[in-house]
Amino acid sequence: MEIGLLGLGKMGYALALNMHGKGHRVIGYNRSMDRVRSLENEGALGATSLENLVNQLSKPRVVWLMVPAGEAVEEVLRDLLPLLEKGDILIDGGNSNYKDTLRRAEELKSQGIHMMDIGTSGGIEGARHGACMMVGGNQEEYGKLESLLQDICLEDGLAHVGPVGAGHYVKMIHNGIEYGMMQAIGEGFEILKESPFDVDYGQIAQVWRHGSVIRGWLMDLTHKAFVEDPELSSIKGVVHASGEGLWSVQEALALSIPAPVMTAALFTRYRSQQQDTFSGKVVAGLRNQFGGHGTIKDES
Amino acid sequence: MEIGLLGLGKMGYALALNMHGKGHRVIGYNRSMDRVRSLENEGALGATSLENLVNQLSKPRVVWLMVPAGEAVEEVLRDLLPLLEKGDILIDGGNSNYKDTLRRAEELKSQGIHMMDIGTSGGIEGARHGACMMVGGNQEEYGKLESLLQDICLEDGLAHVGPVGAGHYVKMIHNGIEYGMMQAIGEGFEILKESPFDVDYGQIAQVWRHGSVIRGWLMDLTHKAFVEDPELSSIKGVVHASGEGLWSVQEALALSIPAPVMTAALFTRYRSQQQDTFSGKVVAGLRNQFGGHGTIKDES
Repeated sequence: MEIGLLGLGKMGYALALNMHGKGHRVIGYNRSMDRVRSLENEGALGATSLENLVNQLSKPRVVWLMVPAGEAVEEVLRDLLPLLEKGDILIDGGNSNYKDTLRRAEELKSQGIHMMDIGTSGGIEGARHGACMMVGGNQEEYGKLESLLQDICLEDGLAHVGPVGAGHYVKMIHNGIEYGMMQAIGEGFEILKESPFDVDYGQIAQVWRHGSVIRGWLMDLTHKAFVEDPELSSIKGVVHASGEGLWSVQEALALSIPAPVMTAALFTRYRSQQQDTFSGKVVAGLRNQFGGHGTIKDES
Repeated sequence: MEIGLLGLGKMGYALALNMHGKGHRVIGYNRSMDRVRSLENEGALGATSLENLVNQLSKPRVVWLMVPAGEAVEEVLRDLLPLLEKGDILIDGGNSNYKDTLRRAEELKSQGIHMMDIGTSGGIEGARHGACMMVGGNQEEYGKLESLLQDICLEDGLAHVGPVGAGHYVKMIHNGIEYGMMQAIGEGFEILKESPFDVDYGQIAQVWRHGSVIRGWLMDLTHKAFVEDPELSSIKGVVHASGEGLWSVQEALALSIPAPVMTAALFTRYRSQQQDTFSGKVVAGLRNQFGGHGTIKDES
């Protein structure tokens, strides 16, 4: 089928190539035109502007956004929506907050435009050669896209999980679980590092990949990381977070559900971004006040 | 080669069949003789007593224990050690605490018996058809066992991770990671359950198995559980713990390493075993004392 793909970052570009390779007519657009040129060099089509993108698509149009969640999506929608028409389908394939998606879907509905949300997992490699997609939207529009989606996903790596918003919701929870799993792996290797045994992290990740209970893609990647850098000495232990772990914890709070592991994983990432903590200063100061315990002088 | 396998529970029995199927001479022993008879019916050999087991083995003997960690291992060793001789190899293939293993290895060393510890992962299916094994022990004894171990493990599912004790240590950490991963999955599905979307847990586990970042055996098993019981309504949310998660946290404490996710996962299991908590009574009582907040009357 015919798809306008807006946003040719790493994920969007890989998806465009995936769709193109499966025989779909992909028209890619990106603010910086070099990505569009690259895509054209691969044999897919490019657009020179949003107007040009929309004009190249037959009606009802299908426009697939792959832009960063938040302000970038808002900006694109401000410019794009006036160009779309009743019956068009707008897909947000990025990691938007599901509440934004629900709000946008309402706005689009008033224009007769169908919104769909697709949570995409599996990294760039997955986007290029077979992704995992959690789709939210009406059954009717899902039916129109299903064969395209089947083409670009792994077998059984595609699910229509509910109405609009559900795709981003399920992806949010996926990432919340991911935070917990990754932190568990990190803690395990930190204990191993300080253990009485002089172990080979890469060897351990390798054996855990084959037949253990904790085998899976994250362990494959752990192994890969240790093969590239046996002590990870080139990597600082600073872990950023792009939103979905936070939203999972916020959702747990909104629903009054205890989620201690996801929360600890998120807060551990925040701590990793700090050089020192004010809470630490307060507690060290208190110990000094009541017990005369020594403190470390801050010379920064 | 020739192996005496002591303890024909689910894991030991499966390992015995695995070894037998690969052409090794397995002599199985178990306190309740029906398991020995079953093994004999499968074509392997059985022993009628510890003495009989030891007498059937050529020297230097290899005896592989598959008995529950703790007192059961102590009891077996009390009866078995007087029967073994200098040069024999004793393998503890159970989930013993590595500190017990180090202590036992010292004791055995004074008798000239070589101790090896093998952490085994992958469940009964793995034990039967291809396990994941983390082996601790001397290089020389490992060399004697290596071809047997390769036969019963998955390819790359075998690693000699260090001297005696290291096998159980690495397995302990494996299980600590497992606790964190499982709790993360549990929390994710609990949020999904209370979410504004009416999702199909089995469908979501299924799509997450194919191409997602969190794919792996635990997600395969999550899917299987939801296929068997779509709401898990037949299962109480009570989670027991057999030791290795606790030991991982104790090890983190001994090494002063923050392990918030493993710890939260362990404590969440403990909470799941409680009907009510005394800490809850105290906090509810305090809120009542200072703010007049209502409490729930305990009528149990």
